[in-house]
Amino acid sequence: MRLTTHTDYALRSLMYLAAHDDSQTIDDIASAYDISKNHLMKVAQRLASCGFITSQRGRGGGLKLARDASEINIGEVVRAMEEVNQFVECSPGSKNQCVVTPVCGLSHILADAVGAFLAHLDKFTLADVMGKRQLFAEIFALETVDS
Amino acid sequence: MRLTTHTDYALRSLMYLAAHDDSQTIDDIASAYDISKNHLMKVAQRLASCGFITSQRGRGGGLKLARDASEINIGEVVRAMEEVNQFVECSPGSKNQCVVTPVCGLSHILADAVGAFLAHLDKFTLADVMGKRQLFAEIFALETVDS
Repeated sequence: MRLTTHTDYALRSLMYLAAHDDSQTIDDIASAYDISKNHLMKVAQRLASCGFITSQRGRGGGLKLARDASEINIGEVVRAMEEVNQFVECSPGSKNQCVVTPVCGLSHILADAVGAFLAHLDKFTLADVMGKRQLFAEIFALETVDS
Repeated sequence: MRLTTHTDYALRSLMYLAAHDDSQTIDDIASAYDISKNHLMKVAQRLASCGFITSQRGRGGGLKLARDASEINIGEVVRAMEEVNQFVECSPGSKNQCVVTPVCGLSHILADAVGAFLAHLDKFTLADVMGKRQLFAEIFALETVDS
């Protein structure tokens, strides 16, 4: 049980953008975290299509948060990036069904447990995660100097 | 975010054993669910080493629950089978650390969300999952006839 790399990179990208006032590029984010640029491009597309960030091409363009960090809910981001209804093969609505699915109490217990996981995340925004925004900015500035 | 196949098979194996009074083999379980025997062998070893099942070799041997289904907690099984402290790369105690780990509030929020997930599972036992034990037994009997 592990958060997908897709969601991991999405949350990191949002943190990077929240630490900067001006637009940033995929290269900036990839360099700061030393992670795959190709993977980040897909993540950024998804974040943009879900309305968490804006993406502008050309000179002066780049990625920015689409709204204030205090208005980006962590549970909402994880729901948008993860296939939370595919937690097990027998999740309600899944195409693959186990032989005992019709009588088994487990799938609903697991679905409710995933619900409890998400409900906890719903209590926090990107701004909460970034409690010390200035420290994030300083760390990213050091990374840029190093690379 | 998905339960590992290892845990999925562990829970299915426990359900199969809970539906039977006598010892069962790996072949029986693999056949009933149409899943990999090799993978099940590793799962059974882990379940036995964690004290959820007993495993006896030879004639009349096989796998049995080590205690009553009402005394096997689902949260306990998932904790034993999953690496719940490896939920993200930056989980507390993880070897791999993200560049912002020292200032980032996310790892503890995610760890607490996993805690909420497990706390929900802690409310249920294998007996709860098997509410209709007789129906499980009937389904497994049909599978045996079919195969």
